[in-house]
Amino acid sequence: MNEEYKVVRAEPLIAFCQRVFESLGVTLQDAHTAAEVLVLGDLRGVESHGVARLQRYSKGLKDGVMVPRPVMRAVTETPCTAVLDGGAALGQVAGKRGMEMAIAKALQYGTGFVAVRNSNHYGIAGYYSQMALKHDLIGISLTNSTPDVVPTFGRTVMIGTNPISVTVPTGQEKPFFLDMATAVVPSGKLETYTRKGRKIPLGWAVDERGRLCDDPSRVWNNMRGGIGGGLLPLGGEGEVFSGHKGYGLGLVVDILSGVLSGSANTTLVYPRTPEGKPLPSLVGHFFGCLRVDFFRPLDEFKRDMDDMIRRLKASPKAEGAERIYIHGEKEFAFEEKYRREGIPLYHKVYENLRAIAAETGVTFNLA
Amino acid sequence: MNEEYKVVRAEPLIAFCQRVFESLGVTLQDAHTAAEVLVLGDLRGVESHGVARLQRYSKGLKDGVMVPRPVMRAVTETPCTAVLDGGAALGQVAGKRGMEMAIAKALQYGTGFVAVRNSNHYGIAGYYSQMALKHDLIGISLTNSTPDVVPTFGRTVMIGTNPISVTVPTGQEKPFFLDMATAVVPSGKLETYTRKGRKIPLGWAVDERGRLCDDPSRVWNNMRGGIGGGLLPLGGEGEVFSGHKGYGLGLVVDILSGVLSGSANTTLVYPRTPEGKPLPSLVGHFFGCLRVDFFRPLDEFKRDMDDMIRRLKASPKAEGAERIYIHGEKEFAFEEKYRREGIPLYHKVYENLRAIAAETGVTFNLA
Repeated sequence: MNEEYKVVRAEPLIAFCQRVFESLGVTLQDAHTAAEVLVLGDLRGVESHGVARLQRYSKGLKDGVMVPRPVMRAVTETPCTAVLDGGAALGQVAGKRGMEMAIAKALQYGTGFVAVRNSNHYGIAGYYSQMALKHDLIGISLTNSTPDVVPTFGRTVMIGTNPISVTVPTGQEKPFFLDMATAVVPSGKLETYTRKGRKIPLGWAVDERGRLCDDPSRVWNNMRGGIGGGLLPLGGEGEVFSGHKGYGLGLVVDILSGVLSGSANTTLVYPRTPEGKPLPSLVGHFFGCLRVDFFRPLDEFKRDMDDMIRRLKASPKAEGAERIYIHGEKEFAFEEKYRREGIPLYHKVYENLRAIAAETGVTFNLA
Repeated sequence: MNEEYKVVRAEPLIAFCQRVFESLGVTLQDAHTAAEVLVLGDLRGVESHGVARLQRYSKGLKDGVMVPRPVMRAVTETPCTAVLDGGAALGQVAGKRGMEMAIAKALQYGTGFVAVRNSNHYGIAGYYSQMALKHDLIGISLTNSTPDVVPTFGRTVMIGTNPISVTVPTGQEKPFFLDMATAVVPSGKLETYTRKGRKIPLGWAVDERGRLCDDPSRVWNNMRGGIGGGLLPLGGEGEVFSGHKGYGLGLVVDILSGVLSGSANTTLVYPRTPEGKPLPSLVGHFFGCLRVDFFRPLDEFKRDMDDMIRRLKASPKAEGAERIYIHGEKEFAFEEKYRREGIPLYHKVYENLRAIAAETGVTFNLA
């Protein structure tokens, strides 16, 4: 392991984050949920959505954008549907509640769809979709987010990286676990490439004039400074490689998460006062579950999932390729390794946790 | 209009296709449905899914792969869910029935999800999703199809171009209408480029060794001859531009359409005997509807949809770009123009219709 990284085990890391959340007024149970979601990001190899974000949540709780003891309530509810007002909770807290409602509805009626309004950044989308797995449900988790993506033919960020996560139960094989941004890449890649002093591939992002750009820090600063440019939707620039499809999928996520929930959508998410002070972020999520055995016998479904996965993995490889992956396989391998050997935290992230400990008066103990 | 095209009006074209289907034993009503779906493909500018395919349906009905008077039945059914056995019907007939069931369920219970097994190619996915619009429902339509797409790092077609269509009601603005293959491009593009003697962009397809290939006829012949290679998933080759995401979305479509329905999935769709004789194709579809006003007041939802669309369209354009589109806008413009001026049919397609008329004894009259 590189010296730039500190290896930390998952359990004390969760416990530390939990204590930080508690020190900011969050209940033990909610603090545990939020901590667990963050560390699962690191465990799955999605470091941009892991404890590197603890600072933002801490700041959000301090400046009132996130509410530590939220009043969450169903705005509308029917047997199979609901809109949950998250009460400006931590996104993990409102998200988990939303998915629990969708699960309960699907277990009883076969389908459950819950849109969440007035929430915040919820971490990795896959945390919620995979909650469905232990009930043998198909799980769906969507969220809108900070506008980081330009529409096809545009040059201003209008849409978040709006992820889609879908989990599907299997038999002997690992579950199908898709968790993808609808942008070509998540914005965290800009930070990673900047840190490593590398150029990004032409086709990930555009500059302030809407032209392809390979300088990650320029794209990042332009985006965050409101100068123009940003990430491209999945499929890339223009329509030649179907960037309009990624753009369309990003809009579907925003429609279900932001419009159907009655929360904010596109550029209305994460508003600020004219002076730049953050207002309640009004992030929206959307959760769905389908009960497999309302459609066909569960054992037959699982057998066919296993069979599909095995045939895909056994199919001939492209020249130079060694392996065909199923979605989730890489993430599960990371999790297994990191649970066994500990999570490598980038030294700046580690030091940032130390600083948060000092700020919040929480003991910094990750051993 | 180029001499290579014959301009034909929609109504007589529908009537002609309908008579062809009737001559092959299909009931008047089902023949009308199938004809209407085909011609809507042409009207929307998706010529690969229009009357150019009439021959395949005619052949399918003759060789028994498609059943003209199918026995369709719900295999399982609950208030919000069902699996419909299409009885090897024309895909348009089973598809329309499936979507009608989903609509009826959503109108009553807020959500309706229907998986269809034992069906056939159903034409454009958007025909079914847009059936939801007149009921102010959000509509979803998915289908699996002939394997034409290689998995990421693979070199053999394993997955169909498996489209996703989502329609969303709006107020004053045109409805949101997404209808996209989960491959970079649909396979029809290979035919179009071959016909025009043009190379395809590097990044659409791979050859029999899994390397990028710009020769459309080579890819087509390789694919159809089982030699190897095929279209790439949305996002392209490998993982640099996130081809694994398009691959994952294609699998989600196959899981819901093929596995959840208990039909065939991936390479099991469109089976043949060892001698090459086609067997029942076992195509599966998946339809879903959400009732907007179970989540929030319809007028508020529509107002926010309009607002989102207007802000997107008004946002600054990339250098050299003139316009930002919303999904469906181009297709609706085609439809308006072609309904007014007639549909341009490629001369070979036109002559093929004449040949079908001769074969089936139907009068060839498109005036």
